[in-house]
Amino acid sequence: MNAPLRALVFGAGGMAGGEVLRLLAGHPSIRAEWVVSRSRAGSPLWNVHPHLRASFPDLAFISPEEASDLTPDVVFLALPHGASFPWIRRFRDRGVKVADLSADVRLADMNEYERWYGAAHPDPELVSQRVYGLPELYRDALAGTGLASGVGCNATCAILGLFPLSRAGLVEDVRMELRVGSSEGGSEPSQGGHHPYRTNVLRVIEPFRHRHLAEVIQETGIPEERLLMSVTAVPFVRGVQMFAQVTLSKKCRESEIWSAYRKAFEGQPFLSLCPARPAHLRFPDPRLVLGSNRCMVGFALEGDGRRLVLVSAIDNLMKGAAGSAVQCANIMLGLDETEGLAMIPVYPA
Amino acid sequence: MNAPLRALVFGAGGMAGGEVLRLLAGHPSIRAEWVVSRSRAGSPLWNVHPHLRASFPDLAFISPEEASDLTPDVVFLALPHGASFPWIRRFRDRGVKVADLSADVRLADMNEYERWYGAAHPDPELVSQRVYGLPELYRDALAGTGLASGVGCNATCAILGLFPLSRAGLVEDVRMELRVGSSEGGSEPSQGGHHPYRTNVLRVIEPFRHRHLAEVIQETGIPEERLLMSVTAVPFVRGVQMFAQVTLSKKCRESEIWSAYRKAFEGQPFLSLCPARPAHLRFPDPRLVLGSNRCMVGFALEGDGRRLVLVSAIDNLMKGAAGSAVQCANIMLGLDETEGLAMIPVYPA
Amino acid sequence: MNAPLRALVFGAGGMAGGEVLRLLAGHPSIRAEWVVSRSRAGSPLWNVHPHLRASFPDLAFISPEEASDLTPDVVFLALPHGASFPWIRRFRDRGVKVADLSADVRLADMNEYERWYGAAHPDPELVSQRVYGLPELYRDALAGTGLASGVGCNATCAILGLFPLSRAGLVEDVRMELRVGSSEGGSEPSQGGHHPYRTNVLRVIEPFRHRHLAEVIQETGIPEERLLMSVTAVPFVRGVQMFAQVTLSKKCRESEIWSAYRKAFEGQPFLSLCPARPAHLRFPDPRLVLGSNRCMVGFALEGDGRRLVLVSAIDNLMKGAAGSAVQCANIMLGLDETEGLAMIPVYPA
Amino acid sequence: MNAPLRALVFGAGGMAGGEVLRLLAGHPSIRAEWVVSRSRAGSPLWNVHPHLRASFPDLAFISPEEASDLTPDVVFLALPHGASFPWIRRFRDRGVKVADLSADVRLADMNEYERWYGAAHPDPELVSQRVYGLPELYRDALAGTGLASGVGCNATCAILGLFPLSRAGLVEDVRMELRVGSSEGGSEPSQGGHHPYRTNVLRVIEPFRHRHLAEVIQETGIPEERLLMSVTAVPFVRGVQMFAQVTLSKKCRESEIWSAYRKAFEGQPFLSLCPARPAHLRFPDPRLVLGSNRCMVGFALEGDGRRLVLVSAIDNLMKGAAGSAVQCANIMLGLDETEGLAMIPVYPA
Repeated sequence: MNAPLRALVFGAGGMAGGEVLRLLAGHPSIRAEWVVSRSRAGSPLWNVHPHLRASFPDLAFISPEEASDLTPDVVFLALPHGASFPWIRRFRDRGVKVADLSADVRLADMNEYERWYGAAHPDPELVSQRVYGLPELYRDALAGTGLASGVGCNATCAILGLFPLSRAGLVEDVRMELRVGSSEGGSEPSQGGHHPYRTNVLRVIEPFRHRHLAEVIQETGIPEERLLMSVTAVPFVRGVQMFAQVTLSKKCRESEIWSAYRKAFEGQPFLSLCPARPAHLRFPDPRLVLGSNRCMVGFALEGDGRRLVLVSAIDNLMKGAAGSAVQCANIMLGLDETEGLAMIPVYPA
Repeated sequence: MNAPLRALVFGAGGMAGGEVLRLLAGHPSIRAEWVVSRSRAGSPLWNVHPHLRASFPDLAFISPEEASDLTPDVVFLALPHGASFPWIRRFRDRGVKVADLSADVRLADMNEYERWYGAAHPDPELVSQRVYGLPELYRDALAGTGLASGVGCNATCAILGLFPLSRAGLVEDVRMELRVGSSEGGSEPSQGGHHPYRTNVLRVIEPFRHRHLAEVIQETGIPEERLLMSVTAVPFVRGVQMFAQVTLSKKCRESEIWSAYRKAFEGQPFLSLCPARPAHLRFPDPRLVLGSNRCMVGFALEGDGRRLVLVSAIDNLMKGAAGSAVQCANIMLGLDETEGLAMIPVYPA
Repeated sequence: MNAPLRALVFGAGGMAGGEVLRLLAGHPSIRAEWVVSRSRAGSPLWNVHPHLRASFPDLAFISPEEASDLTPDVVFLALPHGASFPWIRRFRDRGVKVADLSADVRLADMNEYERWYGAAHPDPELVSQRVYGLPELYRDALAGTGLASGVGCNATCAILGLFPLSRAGLVEDVRMELRVGSSEGGSEPSQGGHHPYRTNVLRVIEPFRHRHLAEVIQETGIPEERLLMSVTAVPFVRGVQMFAQVTLSKKCRESEIWSAYRKAFEGQPFLSLCPARPAHLRFPDPRLVLGSNRCMVGFALEGDGRRLVLVSAIDNLMKGAAGSAVQCANIMLGLDETEGLAMIPVYPA
Repeated sequence: MNAPLRALVFGAGGMAGGEVLRLLAGHPSIRAEWVVSRSRAGSPLWNVHPHLRASFPDLAFISPEEASDLTPDVVFLALPHGASFPWIRRFRDRGVKVADLSADVRLADMNEYERWYGAAHPDPELVSQRVYGLPELYRDALAGTGLASGVGCNATCAILGLFPLSRAGLVEDVRMELRVGSSEGGSEPSQGGHHPYRTNVLRVIEPFRHRHLAEVIQETGIPEERLLMSVTAVPFVRGVQMFAQVTLSKKCRESEIWSAYRKAFEGQPFLSLCPARPAHLRFPDPRLVLGSNRCMVGFALEGDGRRLVLVSAIDNLMKGAAGSAVQCANIMLGLDETEGLAMIPVYPA
């Protein structure tokens, strides 16, 4: 057995960073060698992530300054939006593979970036190197790059549900309703995330066009004017579900839809179609993928053959963040894509 | 003070029946005199509804047979669908006011009843006497009848959100997504309602056209082919929220929408519009009406003036069942409509 | 009908303050006339308490400075510990009745105050005027005072469970385990209260002697060395339950225990004993008092006649805070003790 | 690599059976070859366990009759209490290793069995072969047997917390309060487990001596009269926590307690001690072991050196059932004890 590859994790004190570390704790070929947190430097990792104490009894956070001259095999950047750029630049300039988790290099079009994120992109050249971090769409390109972008958790759920239809040219318009758990908001306390106020909610946080729509447009090619994306906060911690009402571009038989999905999902280790029967398993519940890197998709076609209800589900911290990042890192490093990602959903939980 | 009016409650061992009793426990003019449960006859009410023990220390269930010759001032029927007919008939024939909670006399069109409920209606004449049990739509008619129908909880949430728009002739089509708590399923244990399986769910239980759609069509006049109504089970006990994407029949300014709602809600004691600002209060969360008879409605108009997001919220056991039934009974009995219904939402809970 | 009495509420932007306002919204004789919040002055009350918008459509927060020269009939102080003193002093000096909710005047013994709260009491003379704010223990004294202290929510749950036993001289020692919802922590966001971290917890936050023990010692007379009080945070918003293992001072028959409780609870409008049967209703669940001012108590005696399991339950925001405060205010103002407090528990919720 | 060992799983349609299958799905050396369910025979496994569909796309339940002549390498019996005996006998007689999960062979003393389970044991000879199924106590004996008993989930949590103290002779008496999630009740719907009634509960289901106490007495040697074990149902799905107040048999320094635990936990792959600091990590929350086979233990010694608060936490479906069963099977089959059990807790979830 070879010596394990060495990973450096920025933003290791946050929730997505913690999930990267949960994955690396069980990864056969990549070792979490350094963990960075500006505010926690010097304290043990398990202080923030007590569930990882048995896995990393002795690992302590280092400061960004201590990390800046390290030469790991791969860097994971689980930093807030806008904070990743300089680190990507620094490590890419030295040839280190980078799996980003932020929004900093998700969008390829610099005008779109400015429109959705409200500022000119500070380093467009970086963006030209990057591959969008969904192996389900860019497996080959990821094998040849050193920089995988992050993916929006809502975007991931939507894209993985829609791409078989959009590739088949079947989409006329889509109204997506995303329902999201509290871990999407990250680890920083806030009024809206305070338990007495966040528990039991159905809080419509975006009625029309959540920012992740930019990624859906980019990756599915469906024009913006034919997409709606609302977001509702729901009362659990992990999980995203897309409930979409799709108008098809032509009258379809159900078998055509099945074909489109089977073709797109073939050979995709983490994508599953729900069965047509029994009825109660036709649409996926995020509970069924909890803790795993899976995405499940189910649909039903109305009698008229033009209207489709499409439902997809992921664990936002996994397929929607850390899981996809590790999957990209595996591919960039020449490892098997599924290494360290075989965990089976914990259900019921 | 007059002697209180005497109520007889059928289905008193169920969840909606229990809620009727919670309301009567605090009602100044109606007293729960008899409570009926076939399976519980002889045992104390508090055995099934322990939260009501201080209110009804000595009340015990009687059998339907014991109830059949009583002459109360009002009968509440919280029975399963299909079980109300004979009791409505029996008590109406003797001139007793009846507030039903079942689906048995909700639909006025006997063909629609047969289509949605799968059997010919056994007593169409009964239906001709009844008024649909939403005082917000039929206040005057209820004052002149002896029979108020039940209302579907999802239907109520949808109708109260939509009727100002439909009355104003502004609706082209509506795609409604209803999100419902576990108390909608009633008090009978089931596999899908078992706690380990029901907790934390986002379970799409109907993709296109939930049965309550029949009531929405009937009460809003929007044609069936322009309506979709999906239902998703969400992880709390009480509450229904409608999230609807409405295409308007013409380009509107926001002020027109506000007008339509203000006009329709004027003088309605339990209907509230959400404020336009702050943004986080624009759409109602069912938590904000918990335990009360209120319905809250909020909306946002997209820039194009044709697409509206419309959100409404109720407590399904209250405005969606027991609250509306007591409100109808108040009106039929000549009492103030709001008697016994002034409870303020319990929040946060 | 007389003009309503006018209340001034400090700390009205917090969670206990919000609950005082929910109660005053439905109170027949006291009106919430002014609401104070330093950080929210100028904004509408419903901005912070959206569930109260229909009750108080036009009420806005004022600053403490604006409040300081008002002359209400009663002041409710829902301020953080240590912030009540000066306001109590100010309003008491002008003869205004004060119902405090903080810990500032709970303890009668100034040494004990200093020991448990870590600082000398700044105004011992105030304390000499006050009556401990539990009408169940001090009904008569409250009628003759102008200052009711706050009560600890955990303390209230413990005291109401224990006082019948301690008065009967039956207690040798007590090991109390309090289980508490997230609303005990108030409305300020914190790491420990952040939804992803607070959900689903069983977090032992105090193993031996929670600060509310000082009140239990004071009110039951059980010596400190014979008491343990641990506290565990549990996964709901409202509710406190005490699970206590009591060693009795002598071998008892069950009937003696029933007698002691019946005697102590007689004429107490908000205290209930659980029935001996059926077994599943023998011990109270806080769910059964949700939103109400009730306290339920249940017990079971072991075969040896010396060991008792004692369980009590309240809604911490009601009987443990706002409910008791309003009950005290009612008594101090010469109103019926139960005015505005008759709400029936919302169950299931 | 050798061909995998073949497992036969009875009770595979239940919750503990499902968890055994989740473990075998990722097990490198044991394959779930046959799954038995009387009521589900013929239908696909994923129909009942939809989270396992990607792992077992083609596996279907067989009937007990079809299973009775199979010759697997190991049998897992996840059957109700009283239903395991005949199958243990049948497979042991043919030399097949058996990991039971029921209570049928947990107790070694036939009188105790009769006392706690209410019937004479039907096959005492079986019991004489069996080893109690906790590798932490019986690693060597398990290596030499063909029959591992099941373990009670509450018992496991209690025993793993207490055995270091009882072995060190430090226990005088223990009052244990176990708090348990809804998955302890299994997969069968019931009134008490119905979501609207089970959500948000704090339900004291046993005040003094839960049946699992028999195992605690057997495995720790602490006499029955010095033990109390109450059980409270709490509002989550997975997890058991023991909160125990221990009176020590002599005055101890904290270092002695640490020593006792370090010694007992040394070399135990799934046992962890909580750190003394920071305070909020001193006692384990079951959330921190979710989905894993770990047990965490924390304690605090009161100033007097005689009173200890002891807290332990497990995932009841893992260490308290399926995890321990697979761990025992690994040992009986000569595999590494931790094979297939390395999953890291999913947190926050």
